Parts: sequence; C-alpha cells; structure tokens
Amino acid sequence: MTSKDAQKRTCLAIVLAAGQSKRMRSDRPKVLHELAGRSLLAHVLASVGAAGAERVALVVGPSHDDVVKEAKSIAPDIDVFVQSPALGTAHAVLAAKAAIAEGYDDILVAFGDTPLVQPETFARLRTGLSAPGRAVAALGFLASDPRGYGRLIQEGDTLIAIREDRDLRNDEGEILFCNAGLMAISGATALPLLESIGAANAQGEFYLTDIVAAARRDGLSAVAIDAPEEEVLGINDRQQLAVAEAVLQDRLKAYAMRGGVTFVDPSRVQLSYDTTFGRDVLIEPDVFFGPGVKVGDGVTIRSFSHLTGAEIGPRCIIGPFARLRPGTVLAEDVHIGNFVEVKASVLAAGVKANHLAYIGDASIGAKTNVGAGVITCNYDGFAKFRTEIGDGVFVGVNSALVAPVKIGDGAYIGTGSVITETVEPDALALARSHQVQKPGWAKAFRDKQKK
Amino acid sequence: MTSKDAQKRTCLAIVLAAGQSKRMRSDRPKVLHELAGRSLLAHVLASVGAAGAERVALVVGPSHDDVVKEAKSIAPDIDVFVQSPALGTAHAVLAAKAAIAEGYDDILVAFGDTPLVQPETFARLRTGLSAPGRAVAALGFLASDPRGYGRLIQEGDTLIAIREDRDLRNDEGEILFCNAGLMAISGATALPLLESIGAANAQGEFYLTDIVAAARRDGLSAVAIDAPEEEVLGINDRQQLAVAEAVLQDRLKAYAMRGGVTFVDPSRVQLSYDTTFGRDVLIEPDVFFGPGVKVGDGVTIRSFSHLTGAEIGPRCIIGPFARLRPGTVLAEDVHIGNFVEVKASVLAAGVKANHLAYIGDASIGAKTNVGAGVITCNYDGFAKFRTEIGDGVFVGVNSALVAPVKIGDGAYIGTGSVITETVEPDALALARSHQVQKPGWAKAFRDKQKK
Amino acid sequence: MTSKDAQKRTCLAIVLAAGQSKRMRSDRPKVLHELAGRSLLAHVLASVGAAGAERVALVVGPSHDDVVKEAKSIAPDIDVFVQSPALGTAHAVLAAKAAIAEGYDDILVAFGDTPLVQPETFARLRTGLSAPGRAVAALGFLASDPRGYGRLIQEGDTLIAIREDRDLRNDEGEILFCNAGLMAISGATALPLLESIGAANAQGEFYLTDIVAAARRDGLSAVAIDAPEEEVLGINDRQQLAVAEAVLQDRLKAYAMRGGVTFVDPSRVQLSYDTTFGRDVLIEPDVFFGPGVKVGDGVTIRSFSHLTGAEIGPRCIIGPFARLRPGTVLAEDVHIGNFVEVKASVLAAGVKANHLAYIGDASIGAKTNVGAGVITCNYDGFAKFRTEIGDGVFVGVNSALVAPVKIGDGAYIGTGSVITETVEPDALALARSHQVQKPGWAKAFRDKQKK
Repeated sequence: MTSKDAQKRTCLAIVLAAGQSKRMRSDRPKVLHELAGRSLLAHVLASVGAAGAERVALVVGPSHDDVVKEAKSIAPDIDVFVQSPALGTAHAVLAAKAAIAEGYDDILVAFGDTPLVQPETFARLRTGLSAPGRAVAALGFLASDPRGYGRLIQEGDTLIAIREDRDLRNDEGEILFCNAGLMAISGATALPLLESIGAANAQGEFYLTDIVAAARRDGLSAVAIDAPEEEVLGINDRQQLAVAEAVLQDRLKAYAMRGGVTFVDPSRVQLSYDTTFGRDVLIEPDVFFGPGVKVGDGVTIRSFSHLTGAEIGPRCIIGPFARLRPGTVLAEDVHIGNFVEVKASVLAAGVKANHLAYIGDASIGAKTNVGAGVITCNYDGFAKFRTEIGDGVFVGVNSALVAPVKIGDGAYIGTGSVITETVEPDALALARSHQVQKPGWAKAFRDKQKK
Repeated sequence: MTSKDAQKRTCLAIVLAAGQSKRMRSDRPKVLHELAGRSLLAHVLASVGAAGAERVALVVGPSHDDVVKEAKSIAPDIDVFVQSPALGTAHAVLAAKAAIAEGYDDILVAFGDTPLVQPETFARLRTGLSAPGRAVAALGFLASDPRGYGRLIQEGDTLIAIREDRDLRNDEGEILFCNAGLMAISGATALPLLESIGAANAQGEFYLTDIVAAARRDGLSAVAIDAPEEEVLGINDRQQLAVAEAVLQDRLKAYAMRGGVTFVDPSRVQLSYDTTFGRDVLIEPDVFFGPGVKVGDGVTIRSFSHLTGAEIGPRCIIGPFARLRPGTVLAEDVHIGNFVEVKASVLAAGVKANHLAYIGDASIGAKTNVGAGVITCNYDGFAKFRTEIGDGVFVGVNSALVAPVKIGDGAYIGTGSVITETVEPDALALARSHQVQKPGWAKAFRDKQKK
Repeated sequence: MTSKDAQKRTCLAIVLAAGQSKRMRSDRPKVLHELAGRSLLAHVLASVGAAGAERVALVVGPSHDDVVKEAKSIAPDIDVFVQSPALGTAHAVLAAKAAIAEGYDDILVAFGDTPLVQPETFARLRTGLSAPGRAVAALGFLASDPRGYGRLIQEGDTLIAIREDRDLRNDEGEILFCNAGLMAISGATALPLLESIGAANAQGEFYLTDIVAAARRDGLSAVAIDAPEEEVLGINDRQQLAVAEAVLQDRLKAYAMRGGVTFVDPSRVQLSYDTTFGRDVLIEPDVFFGPGVKVGDGVTIRSFSHLTGAEIGPRCIIGPFARLRPGTVLAEDVHIGNFVEVKASVLAAGVKANHLAYIGDASIGAKTNVGAGVITCNYDGFAKFRTEIGDGVFVGVNSALVAPVKIGDGAYIGTGSVITETVEPDALALARSHQVQKPGWAKAFRDKQKK
C-alpha cells in the first residue's frame, strides 16, 4: 500500500476521553483544558481529521456532558459512547463497538489527553497497517527516562509484544523504545482481537496493549512506528500542560519564522493554533495572540499587545499597549497605538488611533484621525449601539461619541466634546464651556491648605 | 532523637549578615536586595523561624543601620550584634556570644546572603545533632563544579574535616561534596569549641569550618547533611541574584501548579513569596504579582496585569492591562479590564470597569458599571478624599467624580460630566454643554492650512 | 609586534554584504535586519571600527541601494564596491581591489551577516599577522557539530590549510576546529595572493579559503585564531536571527549587571545596543528598551514599560505601563505611572504624571502634578504645537490642554476643562458646565428598557 492507497482506505478514529483528572486539581474535565487557544480534545480531533479519519467515535466517562458539548461544537456528527465503569483501555475502545462494527479499513486509537500527535504521525500509523497480515501498528518513542513506561519488544521489524515496566524480562529493561499507547488497528480483524483480550492481571482490567499478543496468536503481525518523545506527551497535571504548551509554541513559531516572520524573542510571544502571518512581519517581545488573528504582510506589532479575533491588514503598525478584540478588521496602513482598545469595528486604510482610546462597535473611514482620549459610548447599560465615522474626520481629543451617532466625511470634532447628534460632512461640531479664570485662586487655595 | 523530639529542643539561630557586597555594585547592603518581593534577610529569617528557632541573633557589620531596621521590622525582638572588625566566620558567630551563652539546645548558623535554604533543610540540620556525642551538623551539596569550594571529608557517615580547596590532599580533589557553610551546632558544647578555634592561617582569620576538627579533638563527632546545590546558592553579585530569583520562582510556580493553577507560560509570570491562589485559576503570560496578592477560585488573569496588595474574589476576570494596587478588594465576578487602575478601593460583586479608568479611594456597590474613561478625582494637590458609589449605578463615559462625593443606588451619570455634588438614588446627573455645529468650518480650516 | 604596535598599523576592513537572503523570506536585504535595535551591518561596521579599521570598503550586490544607504548613514565616507556577478568570496574581496591597492598594513575581511564578532576578536586577528612572513590570520571556532563546515588544518601553531567538509582526508573529519570565514590579511602581500586564487573547483568559484594554500606556495605562513562559536554565528534565516539576538541580549545584560543593575528576570528584558544604565537601577520583568535610552542612578522601571530615545534622570520611577518616546527628557525624581505616554517633552524635577495621560511636545516645570486623563492636544490635523506648563502647577483630571498654550507657575486647572488660552500664574482656570440633576430619571429609563 502506498501512501496514496492510504488516502482511499476508510478510517474511523476512536478518541478515548473517559479518564479522570485528579492530578489537574480542576473542576473541568482534563481534555477541556487548553493549549494555544483550544482544548486538548480539539487538538486531537483536528489531528485525526487531518490524518483522514472520516468518522470519529468519542469515548467519555459518565457525567462528561461538557466534553460532549465541546466535541459536538467542533464535529457536530461525532459519535459519543459512554464507558462506565472504566475497566481498561481495551474496554474503552470496545465501548465504541457499534462504530467498529461498521467495517472501516483503518481504526485509529487516539487519546484525548495526548494532544501533540501530528497528523503525519497518525498517517504513518495507518501506513503501518499496509503489510499483508498486519493487524496492529503501535506508536512508540525513545524515552529519555524509560522507567514506568511499557516497552515495545521487537524482533527485527516486527513488534512481538508490548511489555509493562513491571513485567520486563532479562535485559529488556535496557530497551528505551517505549509505548505511547496510540495505535492503528486493521478494521477487518479489530473486533475479534479486541474481544479476545482478557482481564487476567493484577488490576483486573482489559488492556489494549494485549492486542499485540492477541494478533500473534491469530497468526497476524504488528509493527511499531516511532515518534519524537515530545509529540506523545500525555497531560496529567498542570506542569505537563505547561510543558506541552511550550512544545506547541515552539512548533508554531518555527513554522512562522520559516514563512518570514521575525520574532525579536520567540520565547516571549504567545501564539494560537490558528494565528496566520504574512511575510516580513515583525513581532516585538511580549505579544499575545488569542484565537482568530490574521496578520498581513509587512505588519509591525510592538510589545505589550493583546490580540484576539482580529484581522490586520498590510503594513499596519500595532502597539505598544494595543488591545484588539474580536470583530476588529483593519485595512492597510492603520496605526493603533498605546492604550487603545478596538472591538467589533472596521477601520479603513490609513486610520490612526494612537493614544488612549476606546473604539467599539464602530466603522471608521479612510485616513480619519482619532485623537487621544476619544471614546465611543456604545453601551447605555442595556444595549449596544454603533458609531459611524466617515473618511478624513478629525476626532478631537477627549471627545465622547454617544452611539448611535454618525459623523460625516471631513468633519471636525472639537476637543472635549460629547457628541450625541449627527455631524454633517465638513462641519465642526463641539460641545464646550468657555474657559474662565479666577486670578489668584490657586495661591489662596494653597495658603488655606497650609494653615 | 526523633523529629518530634526536635520540636521540643530549644533553638537559637545566628544569622550572619556582616559581609560586604562590593561585587553587587550597590549602595544598598547585600542582604537588603530582594527576591520574590522581600529581602534576602527576610527570606532567611522566615526560614529559620519555620525551622523552629525561637530566638534569632543577627550579626551585622558597623554602619549597617538599614539591615537592623529591616530585621526589626520583621522580628521586633531580634537580638543584634555588631562584628567589628571582621575576622572570619567563627569570629562572627562569637559576636553573638551572649546569646549562645543562654544555653539553647541547638544553634543554627545561617547566612543572610544564602536565602533559598528551606525550613526542612534547617530542620534536618538540627536532626543531625541527635546522635550521642554529636557536636556539629554541617550542610553540604554535590557541586556541579567543585573548584574553589571547601570539601566535606567523610569517613563512613562521619564528617572528619572541612578542607579548603587549596589544602586538599591526595585525591580529595575528586570529592564533589562541598561545604555550604551553614551548620547546626549543639548548644551544650558550642562556646568552648568556638573559642578553641585559632587564627593560625594565611589570612589570620577565625574560620567556623575549623569547628569540625575542634570537635574531634574533644572526642565529639560531626555529620554532613546534604542539600541540592541550588538551595545553598549564595548571592555575591547581580547575576547570582537573578539565578536565585529564577530558582525561587520555579519553586513558587511548581507549588501553585500542584494546587490547581494553570500558567500558560510559567516562565513569564512573576510571583511574590506570599502570593496565594485558589483552584482553577488561569494566568496568561506576562503577569506581575507584587507582595500581598490573594487570588480566589476560578479567577482569570490576562496578560500584562500588574498586581500588588490586592484581594481578588472568586471568578473575577482581570486584565489584560489591569493594574491593581494595595488596598484593592474585589468581591466575586468583578471585571477589571484594559488600562484600568484600582487603588485602595472596595468593589462589590459584579462591578465592571472594563476600559481606561482610574478608581482610587472608592467604594463601589454591586453590579455598578464604570464606563470607559471614568476617573475618581481623589486628590486636590494636598489630601486624598473618598468616592462612594452605590449599587447598580451607571457611570457614563469620561465622567470625573470629584471626591469627596456620593452617588446613590441606581443613579445614572451622563457622559463627560464632572460630578462634584451628591447624586440622589435613581437620579440622572449630568454636567454638559450642548452640541453646536458650524457647517463647513472643517473644510474652510483645511483649505486655509493648505495655502 | 605587540598589541601597542597593532595600534600604529593602518587597517582597511572589507565588509562583504553581497549575499542573497532567500532563506530569510524577506524583501529586505539580509544585512538590514536588526539585532538589539540596529542592523546587522551596523553591528559589523561598529566592530571593525572599534578594532582600529580607519577605512571600510563595503562590497554589495547589484540593486542593494538600501544597503548602501544604511552604510552611508553610519559611515558617510565608506567606500562602496559592487560585486556582479557573484563568483565566490575571493572574488568579492577583489571587488575592493582599488582600496586594497592603497597599501594598508592590515586588511580585515568581515561578513555583513556575521554581526556578533567582538572588536577584541578582530584585534586578535590583526595581532595574528605580527609574526615575520605571516600573510593570513584566519578565525576559527570549536564547533559543537562540525558537519558542513570547513576545517582549519594545523601543524603545531601553523595553519596549513582550510579544507572544505567534502574534501576532508583520513581522520580530518574528527577535527572540531572550523572555519568562521573571517580573516586578517597582510596588506603587503594581499593582492598577489588573492589574484593567484583560481576557480578550478566544482562550483567554478574563487574561494577566499584558498589564500592559505596560496600563501604557503609563496613561502608565507598562516595562523588560526579562535573565537567562541556563538560569536561567529552567521545569519541565514529568522531562526538564526533569533538565536543571535539572544546571544547579544545575554552579553548586554551581563555587562549591565556587572555595573550594578538588577534585572528581576534578565530573560524578560529587551535591551538596545546603546542602552546605558547608572548604578542601583532596578528593572522589573517585561521592559522594552529601544535605541537611545539613558537611565540614571537609582531609577526603578516597572513591568510593561516601553522606552525609546528617552533620558531618565536619577531616582525616577517609571511604569508599570509607561511609554517614553524619543525626545523625552526627565530630570530627577520624576514619576511616570500607568498608561502614560510622554513624547518630545522635558519634565523638570519631581513632576508626577501617574495615570492615563498623554504628554507630547511639552515642557513641564518642577513639582507639577499632571492629573489622570490629562492630554496635551499637540496636533490639529496639520501641525504640532507646544504646551508650556510652569512649576508647581496642578493640572486637574481629564483636562485637555490645546496647544499652543502656556500655563503659569502655581496655576490650578479645574477638572475636565478644555484649556485654550494662557493661564496666569497662581490662577484657577476652568471650563465647565454646572451639574444638574433629574430626579428619578434613571429609574424611569430602566423601567422603559425592561418593557
């Protein structure tokens, strides 16, 4: 079977997510904790999907409603199976018996808490099933410290057993090639093999690792496929979650750098799984990308910027100290400066908002200048309203635009004005008290304080 | 002696802080430099206290008034002894002769510039004194690079000498077990042993390390207790200060993660020695915790938040770009958003201040909404005054509340108003000029500029 | 020749910058990418200058106008030579034949994309030419992974060949001492040696490394000078750019720490090549120093501060969340607090601007207090104007100062005022509407919304 053949084979992925998460010390199910802006579960579902699984069976524990909800929000037609009680990994896979029975060519077994496995690795597992008589392809890794892991026992290219650490014989303890747990199983023989696994062990559980021995008993073969250790990292506590986040961040940044992004300090930028970059982008240290950010060619993002759900056009200059929230769409050459927040707003080419401003639920025309301290008052305590500002407008310092309100092209808003009514194009609008002066008042005030 | 017995034994800690700090290049005494929000000295005092020392003698150099002041602010009844001139570590310990003479069971010798020693390690040193005839328990560490350190020379479990690097014999240079300097000394024999130490060496100084030989001369024994190298790191320059800070930060974060805190990137959060967290707390990268911050369950703290002396109730959402200063008390479900500063203020449940605001010396009732650009004017150039805002108030954008001032429950403050007088419950208060429009003014202004 | 003699010898540096940069994926020439606030090229030019090169020849490719422009902005009298087509490193050096022919004692060959070589290392290369009959001193490094590098083949202290990786003989593959490419060449024999290099190799290019063999043929000798591997790092892609930035940052921070600066976390500060610090400076994590910042004694810079082109006087307290832009000059004891931006402004001793303010194109007298939300309106859409504020002024919250405007010593600006006219010393100026109240309005508004 070539890898092209693999494309034609049908594939079911069984994602095991029934485990507990006591060591996380969390009220949230383990697989709903997040890496790079999406849940562990979402990472696994994306990866098996990209590896060609056209159907996914999710195995959850009882009272895992939040897990099911997350899964369905990602893949509405996912099949959910409940494992109860939890009697081992083979038992968990068999919870999805109805899906297995439908006769897919390849069955991928993935873990909801092992989120860094690449699609290519899942695809290599599937390719491992291509030899005649092959029933199982098991994923392994060279462990830096193998203690506690099951070992993959090979004879030549054949995997003959997966042996638990406590059951190692003779010099098998020197084997560094360890069991990652993930597998591809040939659909044709999966059910009888799984059902032949017994629970005759100290824990009385049904272990998926026994499928290798079961296959050999039936005259079928198994193979081991290797992956880097960091790719098969399982998440059991918040230290491991942090380690996995670091691995994923390195991966995302390496990809971005190859594409033409300069990170002044890559270790001090947080990316999301879906951040996209144009070419010749410069990112200063200390920038946070939440989900949904697209960055155009030639953009500079300065330190201390926090971006989520924003589209940033070519040659924009963002920050330092800029906050872009979901629904922000910036055309080319827009400047968003320090202490400026933009939310659900569309800014046309060349708009500048360089200091201390809040732009929410607004549209702003080309080359408009938003002064320091300008605020769109989009909320009256009950509902949100929109502000529409035309092209070439000069919005004076400290002015408040009380939505819903429209400001015509080329208008000028006087400093410190509260604007509540439509401003005509090319007009000056202002709302201001005259300056008065009380000579000597300040000195008298000071003198009084000193007494 | 069991460790329970250790609890019953009396203990004096002698903290040596007389050293110079030329390599720090600082006008500040070395032990007053800070790690995780408190001085090196404070770390040492806390650790010996937690190890059961009921009395502490501090040995300082002349003109170390600032050190004494810091010590007394932490432990008002600390005994201060001045060593002058500085004639070696044994001489420094003997500066506290009056305290030693009082007859404590155990004497701990700690260094003011070695701040990372854990209370458990001091306790193990004390336990090292439990064998009959035991006079000294010396702390050692396996050095990654032993050059320059004194070595702990053992015969079986007995410490027979502490040998300076330059005095090593035969193959003693291969010994990696080095002298950390810290000790526990049995109070019963401490004074005669210390006083028997001579200064017959090249430097003409009295070395505490000679107490091991002195004990053996008197038919008493010594033992070595081991600690991780990073725990006994001494601070002599700012590079070492930075290394120690990193060690301490790792320790603090590991503890928090075990308790249920997610740090998206643990290396990019600064904790203080006393930061406390509830469960299921999420901390984005780039958050600074100064001293005195308590974080409740389910809190999210976004990037670029700077928090000191603040109490944060359950499920609050803080940041990005939030500054909480001392005296901030937030009840549950409070939202403090971007470019918002809160100081010495109590905010009731559900208060929102999401954009560009300064809240100082205020109390704010439940579910009140503080608009963008709102500022409490708490200072008139001479004194500070308080602002009291009731429940369910809507404070309009860009309004300034000139303290002292009260705003009743359910009131509504109009956009851009300067509020100087009491606002009644359920009233609308505003101070605003009417909007006027000068048609064509902006175009004429532009035309004039172009000429 | 002693190193003092080296000072008397004349020196030409030839900087090779003709290379392509496909792996950078950039429209910008590789040598114009930046490290620590200046271009790779600028780093190299500074280093050869500090090593005593009184003349610099820059060899560029065709259509490298931007490179020439950058070079001339740094060294107006630099000589530019164009290499076209690119036929190898010896060919590139010979592009500067006219300069070589002028008869300098020493010729340094440097690479525009190898920016971390220290002046001391260039000077050591020059010193390598001091032995009689010495024609070449080549720079080498002990490679952690030598594969792919040319090796420096030595006999005793003599360099006998630079051998390409693919041409290694016998056990030369075990040699870890690799060719960094940089060289010093004796001016007296440079031209004939360079011109004797042929292109009889697979690529048909003229390789500078062949100069060692050429020298030996002429009875002259060569020597290898070693440098740390990280110092000779060449930049070919953005990953290497990030690695070089990290090396340079470590170097800059180590220097600063030795001088008396505390970085709470050195890995989370960005310095520029020219940042200068006084003694007893404290820098919290997450601070960005762009070019041109000078920090005085005793200054504290808090987290999330972004500083460029600013002079900060003794004992100032900056941040958190402060932005200082070019032209900012702060005298002693100035406090710039959160969400405050200062640009092109001179602030006298003791000025405080602690919250949410924009100070641009202003001068502010001693001990003046700038309230929260204060903005200098320095721009009218066409030009910038200055604001002059005297000593001891109290600028009330949310006031806007419309430049050009002057505020006299001791004046008091009322909260929320738009100030457009001169304020006399000791006067109170305000522009404010009276507060009015509409009892019950807020309740009625709420009731209406609920319907």
